[in-house]
Amino acid sequence: MELRALQRRKERQERGRFTAEGVRVVEDLMASGLVVRWVVTASSLEDSERGSALAAEIERRGIPRRAIPDRDFAALAATETPQAVIAVADVPRAGIDDFRLSAAPAVVLVLDAVQDPGNFGTLTRSAEALGAVGVIALPGTVDPWNAKSIRAAAGSSFRVPIVQLAWVEARSILRERGVEILGAALEGEPIGQEVRERVALVVGNEGAGLSREVREGVDRLVRIPLRGRAESLNVAAAAAILLYELARDRPPATG
Amino acid sequence: MELRALQRRKERQERGRFTAEGVRVVEDLMASGLVVRWVVTASSLEDSERGSALAAEIERRGIPRRAIPDRDFAALAATETPQAVIAVADVPRAGIDDFRLSAAPAVVLVLDAVQDPGNFGTLTRSAEALGAVGVIALPGTVDPWNAKSIRAAAGSSFRVPIVQLAWVEARSILRERGVEILGAALEGEPIGQEVRERVALVVGNEGAGLSREVREGVDRLVRIPLRGRAESLNVAAAAAILLYELARDRPPATG
Repeated sequence: MELRALQRRKERQERGRFTAEGVRVVEDLMASGLVVRWVVTASSLEDSERGSALAAEIERRGIPRRAIPDRDFAALAATETPQAVIAVADVPRAGIDDFRLSAAPAVVLVLDAVQDPGNFGTLTRSAEALGAVGVIALPGTVDPWNAKSIRAAAGSSFRVPIVQLAWVEARSILRERGVEILGAALEGEPIGQEVRERVALVVGNEGAGLSREVREGVDRLVRIPLRGRAESLNVAAAAAILLYELARDRPPATG
Repeated sequence: MELRALQRRKERQERGRFTAEGVRVVEDLMASGLVVRWVVTASSLEDSERGSALAAEIERRGIPRRAIPDRDFAALAATETPQAVIAVADVPRAGIDDFRLSAAPAVVLVLDAVQDPGNFGTLTRSAEALGAVGVIALPGTVDPWNAKSIRAAAGSSFRVPIVQLAWVEARSILRERGVEILGAALEGEPIGQEVRERVALVVGNEGAGLSREVREGVDRLVRIPLRGRAESLNVAAAAAILLYELARDRPPATG
């Protein structure tokens, strides 16, 4: 069955599809403009007003829906509390051209081997909330279209362009477009001063930090400007603070 | 068996014990001074130098150890990748008196019905990294001693005093000690100005935010000072930014 297959990264890549689970996430998906192929719902979905409204919207759009008993539903889900609805949608084809780099100031978030899907989702969510124009996932990073990543992103996966690229390629494209590349590392300089109009912030793996290749290839290393602290922040917390600093020190982008 | 029992909150409370899983977490536990009652290890633990060193330290301290085959180990764990070692330890008995409130500036993090154990752990980790003197878990908050909370806290659960208290009680004790209580809410004023030497920051539930009781009982509501953004940050990301602002605007505590 397709749902089961789409729990595997390889299948998601080959089919160009992913699953989104839960009422809130599927509402966000439906509102995003991405192509929704089909939906499976548990019978209890329509017990709530919100669930009924979602079922009606699925119907209105003519999206094929398979309704199954609650007892059969949980076995289909990839996340722990799937909340009565799973949608299958097309992975959006984004490229760096979809990043609004022209609207400087612009910040790109780059993830170097971030492995936890919850962290990936939280990072994508923070990227959107703090005004980043796009996310680049380097090799070794968890699949952005993992159901857990999507769940943690709370809809941001559908609205922020996410691009998977090799480091050499990403660096070359960013440089061509005048983007300064900052790597987050404890030995960096305090962030906040002398930052260009267009910057990319690279954050590294949960345990190991930036890979050697990335560390050596960025324009500058930066850190959170607190003395003797913040050594042990979770990558998503550290990135939130750094993105906040980048958003704060520069006027907000319009539009 | 005790391990299985300790996966339930009620059993952890009655027994006053919790489990910690994984080499890194158990290393932190051993270094923390908490009482470790016994340990179960998988045979593969000693395949690595680090695992062997941990096994030797357990031996040196005379902590009872049960070694079992790898194939039996995974079934005992509460987290997904338990990494060959699980320790059973005593829940530390902390009170607000264990918070270093006297060493102003002091920040207390208060969690109002934060339900996800990963968020709880990340918040505890951020609290330590950003210099908070303690964490208060209000009713409705996930158990601080859940194995997943502990895993996400990366050792901070063992070093930061964590207290479970009702709101009325927490508020009264904090007020008695001259602590200003700030609630994080979108309709608050931008944080960063005119903050007392001693503050408590209350953050709310993932979906609902602060409970009505808390919202009405805090001294002031504060928000992240970014126009038109940050509405949809994850609670752990939002709290990291707010704790960072509180840490930044005041001189660092010494000692």
